[in-house]
Amino acid sequence: MTSTPTPADRFSFGLWTVGWRGADPFGDPTREALDPVEAVQRLAELGAYGVSFHDDDLIPFGADEADRTHRIARWRKALDAAGLVVPMATTNLFSHPVFKDGGLTSNDRSVRRFALRKVLRNLDLAAELGAATYVLWGGREGSETDAGKDVRAALERYREAMNILTQYVTDQHYPIRFALEPKPNEPRGDILLPTIGHALAFISSLDRPELVGVNPEVGHEQMAGLNVVHGVSQALWQGKLFHIDLNGQRGPRFDQDLIFGHGDLLSAFFLVDLLEHGGYHGPRHFDYKPLRTEDRAGVWASAAANMRTYLLLRERAAAFRADPEVHRALETSKVAQLSIPTLRRGETYRDLLADNEFDPRAAGEKGYGFVELSQLALEHALGAR
Amino acid sequence: MTSTPTPADRFSFGLWTVGWRGADPFGDPTREALDPVEAVQRLAELGAYGVSFHDDDLIPFGADEADRTHRIARWRKALDAAGLVVPMATTNLFSHPVFKDGGLTSNDRSVRRFALRKVLRNLDLAAELGAATYVLWGGREGSETDAGKDVRAALERYREAMNILTQYVTDQHYPIRFALEPKPNEPRGDILLPTIGHALAFISSLDRPELVGVNPEVGHEQMAGLNVVHGVSQALWQGKLFHIDLNGQRGPRFDQDLIFGHGDLLSAFFLVDLLEHGGYHGPRHFDYKPLRTEDRAGVWASAAANMRTYLLLRERAAAFRADPEVHRALETSKVAQLSIPTLRRGETYRDLLADNEFDPRAAGEKGYGFVELSQLALEHALGAR
Amino acid sequence: MTSTPTPADRFSFGLWTVGWRGADPFGDPTREALDPVEAVQRLAELGAYGVSFHDDDLIPFGADEADRTHRIARWRKALDAAGLVVPMATTNLFSHPVFKDGGLTSNDRSVRRFALRKVLRNLDLAAELGAATYVLWGGREGSETDAGKDVRAALERYREAMNILTQYVTDQHYPIRFALEPKPNEPRGDILLPTIGHALAFISSLDRPELVGVNPEVGHEQMAGLNVVHGVSQALWQGKLFHIDLNGQRGPRFDQDLIFGHGDLLSAFFLVDLLEHGGYHGPRHFDYKPLRTEDRAGVWASAAANMRTYLLLRERAAAFRADPEVHRALETSKVAQLSIPTLRRGETYRDLLADNEFDPRAAGEKGYGFVELSQLALEHALGAR
Amino acid sequence: MTSTPTPADRFSFGLWTVGWRGADPFGDPTREALDPVEAVQRLAELGAYGVSFHDDDLIPFGADEADRTHRIARWRKALDAAGLVVPMATTNLFSHPVFKDGGLTSNDRSVRRFALRKVLRNLDLAAELGAATYVLWGGREGSETDAGKDVRAALERYREAMNILTQYVTDQHYPIRFALEPKPNEPRGDILLPTIGHALAFISSLDRPELVGVNPEVGHEQMAGLNVVHGVSQALWQGKLFHIDLNGQRGPRFDQDLIFGHGDLLSAFFLVDLLEHGGYHGPRHFDYKPLRTEDRAGVWASAAANMRTYLLLRERAAAFRADPEVHRALETSKVAQLSIPTLRRGETYRDLLADNEFDPRAAGEKGYGFVELSQLALEHALGAR
Repeated sequence: MTSTPTPADRFSFGLWTVGWRGADPFGDPTREALDPVEAVQRLAELGAYGVSFHDDDLIPFGADEADRTHRIARWRKALDAAGLVVPMATTNLFSHPVFKDGGLTSNDRSVRRFALRKVLRNLDLAAELGAATYVLWGGREGSETDAGKDVRAALERYREAMNILTQYVTDQHYPIRFALEPKPNEPRGDILLPTIGHALAFISSLDRPELVGVNPEVGHEQMAGLNVVHGVSQALWQGKLFHIDLNGQRGPRFDQDLIFGHGDLLSAFFLVDLLEHGGYHGPRHFDYKPLRTEDRAGVWASAAANMRTYLLLRERAAAFRADPEVHRALETSKVAQLSIPTLRRGETYRDLLADNEFDPRAAGEKGYGFVELSQLALEHALGAR
Repeated sequence: MTSTPTPADRFSFGLWTVGWRGADPFGDPTREALDPVEAVQRLAELGAYGVSFHDDDLIPFGADEADRTHRIARWRKALDAAGLVVPMATTNLFSHPVFKDGGLTSNDRSVRRFALRKVLRNLDLAAELGAATYVLWGGREGSETDAGKDVRAALERYREAMNILTQYVTDQHYPIRFALEPKPNEPRGDILLPTIGHALAFISSLDRPELVGVNPEVGHEQMAGLNVVHGVSQALWQGKLFHIDLNGQRGPRFDQDLIFGHGDLLSAFFLVDLLEHGGYHGPRHFDYKPLRTEDRAGVWASAAANMRTYLLLRERAAAFRADPEVHRALETSKVAQLSIPTLRRGETYRDLLADNEFDPRAAGEKGYGFVELSQLALEHALGAR
Repeated sequence: MTSTPTPADRFSFGLWTVGWRGADPFGDPTREALDPVEAVQRLAELGAYGVSFHDDDLIPFGADEADRTHRIARWRKALDAAGLVVPMATTNLFSHPVFKDGGLTSNDRSVRRFALRKVLRNLDLAAELGAATYVLWGGREGSETDAGKDVRAALERYREAMNILTQYVTDQHYPIRFALEPKPNEPRGDILLPTIGHALAFISSLDRPELVGVNPEVGHEQMAGLNVVHGVSQALWQGKLFHIDLNGQRGPRFDQDLIFGHGDLLSAFFLVDLLEHGGYHGPRHFDYKPLRTEDRAGVWASAAANMRTYLLLRERAAAFRADPEVHRALETSKVAQLSIPTLRRGETYRDLLADNEFDPRAAGEKGYGFVELSQLALEHALGAR
Repeated sequence: MTSTPTPADRFSFGLWTVGWRGADPFGDPTREALDPVEAVQRLAELGAYGVSFHDDDLIPFGADEADRTHRIARWRKALDAAGLVVPMATTNLFSHPVFKDGGLTSNDRSVRRFALRKVLRNLDLAAELGAATYVLWGGREGSETDAGKDVRAALERYREAMNILTQYVTDQHYPIRFALEPKPNEPRGDILLPTIGHALAFISSLDRPELVGVNPEVGHEQMAGLNVVHGVSQALWQGKLFHIDLNGQRGPRFDQDLIFGHGDLLSAFFLVDLLEHGGYHGPRHFDYKPLRTEDRAGVWASAAANMRTYLLLRERAAAFRADPEVHRALETSKVAQLSIPTLRRGETYRDLLADNEFDPRAAGEKGYGFVELSQLALEHALGAR
């Protein structure tokens, strides 16, 4: 049955997701710490193919060298035993008080230097573990008052940092590409590079733009009320969808990190449709939080739920694409016509200006048939066709 | 007194702003149509230096050639008499039913062609009237269902259109640059290029990116809950702030187009501070709607209120920047330190990795003093210092 | 097949929904006016049982008596022929310029008097047509500046108006109850009684609270980011769900009036579950707008889509409630335990204080199993079980 | 100078505000724990008159009786020494894992019983310390999935709890009134009684409604995009503004708890105007969080900033109310006319129906002058008049 995940589905999870202990701004942890080795074992059993990590998920901040080595070796062994890969790694530049005004864009230059060293160091580990993607989520790169942050200087420092990092992986011959993860706010009042768009724009300013893409998170775009399918489409169009974080969110409010599909279900359907039919071949990475109300059994149930929902929606999207009635409706709505250039091959604006056959009144009266199309999509999502 | 506007302040207004008749989704117009000639006269009297227009503001859609010529000549005369300039022009690709699925990215190719002709034609008028900036707000370029719009194809068509337009102004030797105006939604469910970031990213894909920048609108960014000062800062940093639309908005809801400052007042203060001290030299263009409750006198009062509020905030921002206590607070908060490169001149990541003097614990305990700074800003905004 | 609507399903539509011509804040109408007689015929054919109206939908504002009588008679005939009922009627106190500062709470007393007369007059027609519910949506009752509206006085006038109206129906022996429809904003910057809660609270202050309930609209609650299922539950709990407006919305933004289910699909599922199993017996009334991109055929397709989606979700909700696995999960989550009083019959707080058996640590470790339950619900919604 | 606070200004702070250590969902604490005794001393020095507390702020969860007694005695001594009062107390029903599905409305009946005992017990302490108001913020009373919470049963249990609590204070002759604090979401996905309106409506269902009012928090209403001035006005109108939490928020996003005025400044101005001129006589209570970027000095600076901003706005509001130009503008806008009953004394709806003098067209053309009024308010807020 298609809803049982296998490694071929390329599902991966952050260590910090199943490992989340349930502490929130108003409450203490409700679960014990989860051993990264157990995480690996259980995720493999559930059908995942990969696991990702922040440096601090694996090695406590400030751990000494021996401890670090030991923990890495132990985890590596678990990965090998379970047959899991590490498709992505990232740096924790947000938990420790030292990063309270940011890491790569802190006003304090010594903090920026420390943050950069922390990334460089974990890049070595990422390379060692075979991660192809290195994510940067700059959750503390931002401000609560516009008086306290020179945003243009901050972007300049961000650029400096990215240029150093891309230089580094180039020099080291690491087959690693970077993916910036946008978020509009929380924990900072406003975060730099708040959306997919801002991150893509920033990337165009870098020394090695080809090494840097984005890692959109479903809920982060929805926190700004944006259509995540549109944003991911633009990232794909600009050749920059290097990785993706799947989860759920119920609109502009705190970062909920719900199970994928447990927020805006229709949007999840269209997103799966896009990922499956739009040329994305990377991991389907879940970055969510098991509800704080759950015990460990609920944690594993939630991990399974993410994958199962994805597979169900994948099935629905395939049926949608295969339905002749959908083909007819797409035709009526002229969806494919948008792929035809507006000017004919060889045509110039002079030719266009000379073309005066058009009757705007008649064209304005024709219906586009989007209602039928969207209802067909909804019914396919609901498994009702 | 600084709060009386003069042409040196470079205030401009859209014809459609003071001309808005008050029709909204639930109500009929409450005001008579305003003659563009009267608009020009009154705006000049109030101290504006410029006026901008959509083609249809001046010439009714479908008007014949003679009518068109007459209306243009009459308006031009009024501009000359009043001493007003036309710093910006734009195309109405949203009111007529023909554009119901968009103009430059309509699924219907014949509509795209018509839309492009409409822009080209108005570019000639823009050039004739001396407009340096040509704005494109793609309010209908979007969708209500993800099934009905191939976003990647739409961006491709948008790109095709922008490439044709930049080719055209280059060929015609028009000293015109384009400015894309982002908006997240309304009137479409989701609009393409929803934020400053998405527009900047898109521009980086064009044939002549140097001819295309952005025209951010305060309220449009705030409809997505984004910090408009951050967004405008990024546009400035990327050399793309070609124009700006000032107004007010109270967060994510319908597009309110309030008087500048009548939404998020603190953000308006910081935006004026940025525009005045951040190297922007273009028009201060108000794109707002006089409340539907007002008669014609209220329309002119609202036009004056926009300018007066800007001038008051400009005064406040200057005082803020001049205050020695603010200087001390900026120093404490290390704001200027962010302009110092993270690596010394000549320093490499190897040197950085070898630098191990840093004590994260001690650094994490130091306060940044952002509270004092933000309170100083607030008190300057309030005129209380 | 269950997804074909019949009058037994009690589906009704506003005349203004299928009749919406597509004018929006940025665009002209895209469809011709729809004859209320045709609306009635087509809705009946599609399986609706009822139709609702604003006075002005049927009789143009300012029509003379003869015209009024003629239009009513003609429509009545159509209703009878089609076998449609009029379960609800309402007053347009928002389109005409006279209501620009509100109807029942306008600052102008003469406007308030006019508005009240308009309601009284249409109440007679509502009674004549057999409407059991009379809705008041106060879209213009609000403000854009807090300086311009004394909210406490406005609520006092609202109360005065409601007391007059309930006196009137009582005196006339009209079997009519009122339903207030909350909305947070648009067209006014802020609207009075912005949510279900505010309306319920206001009702508790009236002379005849038993005659006044609420008419929640799905999208209106979602414009405030609120959980509409929670809000409707509170209305039911307070005995005040007199009517409901079903549609779709994609979070805090302009009022989209999408087809039911075409916004937050999961929430639509839970809402249908609540309406079907929560003791609501009134009309399932759709208050939506057929997309502006559609022609008349799309209008009827959209009307059918509302009903079909409701029926599909009704089927899904029934299957969810019947599934033994769901029963087990509800048990695990202790959902039914919430209906057991916290104190035993006869128990007092003294007894409670003496009960010291409880171990908070152990209780804090138990999981609630909400993940399994929500995944079961999602899979039932998707028709995957 | 008016901007130096004194006890006569009735400023109070929660122990948990200045005591907040800076832990957030993505970061560890940045400050040491603050001794409640030091909090009291410093707040008194800064000019506050009162301090409020959760039971757990003072006495760690699970502390034994001796420890509890000792801590209370020590704190009481500090209060007396500093001359601070305790105007409000509240219960922490959200931090401990036991409350993960709520306290008074947890699905688990034994948790509800425990929660109720915890409130009862702290009520005794509140009475002992002289608190006149007892706040209930039900931050965990809610759900993430509609399947997991029977909202009507939950409201029934909430009612049961409130009835027990009001019975208790009545029996004990405690001069205490309760104030419910609404919040739409966070930490739960959706919280019961999400707005002022929902809480007021709920209160109308209680056995002793006269003992229960609301404690609105500025930011909580703004998280739902609602106008907090309108909401507080309705609470005042219904005689239910028993307490208020002042802070700042930048629209729908995570709960920011900014310094008062550091969010929506214009709304803060109008709120102060309402509190000062609207008959509220309770504490001006700040419920905010000193930014995580700050050290202890920043904490005290932030406490002072709250009070200073309030005093500045109070001054501005007084000047606004005293300005003859404002009086003229209020007259033009007919603001006071809204306090005149719509029907004359003795007039009936029959008289009203007979009154046909009104010309809607002429009335629709008159402007309301809200632009002038709002600009005057803005300029008074800015200290520019």
